[in-house]
Amino acid sequence: MTEKKIPPAIQAAFEKIRRGADEILPEGALIDKLIKSSKTGKPLRIKAGFDPTAPDLHLGHTVLLRKMKHFQELGHEVLFLIGDFTGMIGDPTGRSATRKQMTRAEIEQNAKTYSDQVFRILDKSKTTIRFNSEWCDKMTFADVLGLTAQMTVARMIERDDFTKRLKAGDSISLIEFMYPLVQGYDSVALESDVELGGTDQKFNLLVGRDLQERFGKEGQSILTVPLLVGLDGEKKMSKSYGNYVGITEAPYSMFAKIMSIPDSILRNYFVLLTDYTVAQIEGWIADPFEAKKILAATIVDDYHPAGSGKEARLLWEKEKSERKGLVLPPDAKVLDLKGKSEISLVQAMVDGGVEASLTAARKLIEQGAVKMGDDLETITSRDYVLKLPGTYSFKIGKKKYLVVQG
Amino acid sequence: MTEKKIPPAIQAAFEKIRRGADEILPEGALIDKLIKSSKTGKPLRIKAGFDPTAPDLHLGHTVLLRKMKHFQELGHEVLFLIGDFTGMIGDPTGRSATRKQMTRAEIEQNAKTYSDQVFRILDKSKTTIRFNSEWCDKMTFADVLGLTAQMTVARMIERDDFTKRLKAGDSISLIEFMYPLVQGYDSVALESDVELGGTDQKFNLLVGRDLQERFGKEGQSILTVPLLVGLDGEKKMSKSYGNYVGITEAPYSMFAKIMSIPDSILRNYFVLLTDYTVAQIEGWIADPFEAKKILAATIVDDYHPAGSGKEARLLWEKEKSERKGLVLPPDAKVLDLKGKSEISLVQAMVDGGVEASLTAARKLIEQGAVKMGDDLETITSRDYVLKLPGTYSFKIGKKKYLVVQG
Repeated sequence: MTEKKIPPAIQAAFEKIRRGADEILPEGALIDKLIKSSKTGKPLRIKAGFDPTAPDLHLGHTVLLRKMKHFQELGHEVLFLIGDFTGMIGDPTGRSATRKQMTRAEIEQNAKTYSDQVFRILDKSKTTIRFNSEWCDKMTFADVLGLTAQMTVARMIERDDFTKRLKAGDSISLIEFMYPLVQGYDSVALESDVELGGTDQKFNLLVGRDLQERFGKEGQSILTVPLLVGLDGEKKMSKSYGNYVGITEAPYSMFAKIMSIPDSILRNYFVLLTDYTVAQIEGWIADPFEAKKILAATIVDDYHPAGSGKEARLLWEKEKSERKGLVLPPDAKVLDLKGKSEISLVQAMVDGGVEASLTAARKLIEQGAVKMGDDLETITSRDYVLKLPGTYSFKIGKKKYLVVQG
Repeated sequence: MTEKKIPPAIQAAFEKIRRGADEILPEGALIDKLIKSSKTGKPLRIKAGFDPTAPDLHLGHTVLLRKMKHFQELGHEVLFLIGDFTGMIGDPTGRSATRKQMTRAEIEQNAKTYSDQVFRILDKSKTTIRFNSEWCDKMTFADVLGLTAQMTVARMIERDDFTKRLKAGDSISLIEFMYPLVQGYDSVALESDVELGGTDQKFNLLVGRDLQERFGKEGQSILTVPLLVGLDGEKKMSKSYGNYVGITEAPYSMFAKIMSIPDSILRNYFVLLTDYTVAQIEGWIADPFEAKKILAATIVDDYHPAGSGKEARLLWEKEKSERKGLVLPPDAKVLDLKGKSEISLVQAMVDGGVEASLTAARKLIEQGAVKMGDDLETITSRDYVLKLPGTYSFKIGKKKYLVVQG
């Protein structure tokens, strides 16, 4: 390694960027870019690509968005790229039902949904939303051949998932070799200085760097962030696993969900979801219960008006201390479901005559107003399911009671 | 195999097509197409693709062209496809110097050169010259992705040469995976019923068949012809090996060159370069010297006015019988080349003051007017090289003599 004198301000900026990152490649080039930007006063162009499919962001997505925000705090410009070109193609192999062809109107609706959500984190004044159809739509067959000429087959096959699938004898469509080139060419078109993405995107981000150099430009640095583990502490956070916290969830629901995480992932959540210093985090973590409350309140404040975190904490603590057991009154509603194998809680609330609509039932759960069983456990998931046969008793709000049996 | 009653006329047509072919895939489908065409009166569309680079056809190329002609004799239509789209792209990898980017004017000039030559074999009234830029130029990035979605990586890797190169660790550019798709899509656009090509094209021809089916059309049958071995009886016929007979060569030169082939390839030449029956060929071949004269005269007649073959034969036999040894006259020119390692014969003729220009010297060789050494061997190659040190004596035309020494 060559010894290089890095100005303290740049070193500090770099530390902020590196915090919580998985990999930065190459580190030296990123530092050089930071130095150059500081000298010229020209902000770096920070690219991150997003699917054009309907976005419903949860804390898992915020790890990347927060890293984008860090760059903005350092004065740089974020290029929020929506990959609408491939979205409008759909999946020509017809294998993936989820990848259906989208219309221009759907893409625009989704872009709006994105911006409604991401500007809870990003600085709007330092963000440009771009669509890759802008340049991809104009490319000819000849242009595409020119693009494929920049990539070798061996390099593609070396990508982790391709290697595995080829070994396993699983089919890979040639179009899958094309997508990294589309994504990589986006970097050429955007002239990005840095591209951010999840660890699973490392290969594609490096293709972008290569293509820029092949097209005679300076190659971007790449920065990957780890995948956030879900509330269960095991699988990655995902809507399909139900182990997530949505960034538009109500304060109490957010708070209660975060209080449910295992102590083992507490440090990880602090690092990836807050800006606290290592010293602060290490100090708090000695008392996990209290640390979790700080974490939960901090996250609530990130997505709700200032003070919401504190309010949610007080409400949660009050509920906790008030838990005196559930005593069913004589007029409790009873829902009888002999022979059924399961029912969603919200459906049971409607069918049992406690609430008029599923929407109203969901709202109550989000407000933390639905408690279950003798220890009055607060239900936090709108998707909570009751397995039958079994007997469940609920206190809903201050005065309503429901027993589900089957 | 299912027993199928094939009408005798179709069986005869099929035998004509199969003669000299390497593979027909699938045979049954081709027979079905022939039957259908005979019933409907609609000619089959016979596709063959050609490089847009400057064509200078030799007998090696005629194996394919003659097979195309056979289809025309059976009433079918030939689609002579010039792959100008890829030609105008050149080689974006920059690795192949020979594959330089061509202009529209060059392509058109080459197309003209092609037609000047191929209509010595093909029936102009049953031939359509097409250019694949016609449809490829209109294709968008999205269209190309749709095309790549029809092909798997595993299938590509299975192509013989790709397998070998991957194993050997040699680099394969992704663009090389694209070319079979371009060629295959040409079959979709042309709606070809049959595609012809050399044995080395089998994979690409099958891709065309697949793509047609993927695009909801009937898949073409494919027919491959073997590569013709050169005059040396060893390597494939090729300009770069100097073991070829050009189809625009003078009658005498053609005749003399063919007389020089080894007996071992005589049957092969008869099968691939003439329409004689097996019985005729087997009868003649018992006397190889006479058989070679029949073969040579037949080929001369194919590319020159009727009777040219006989004339060339008479000339050749006369020269042969007149060979009485070379007696140098006192005014013979002498070219002294001490220290040189080699010289081309044409250069020696010019430098020795026997001919005024290389062109004139070449013309004399083609006319069979240059004889060498004591046995007055006729020089047939315009590219004949004299290795030095050594002494060579020549009779040029009726009256000139040259001695080269060094």
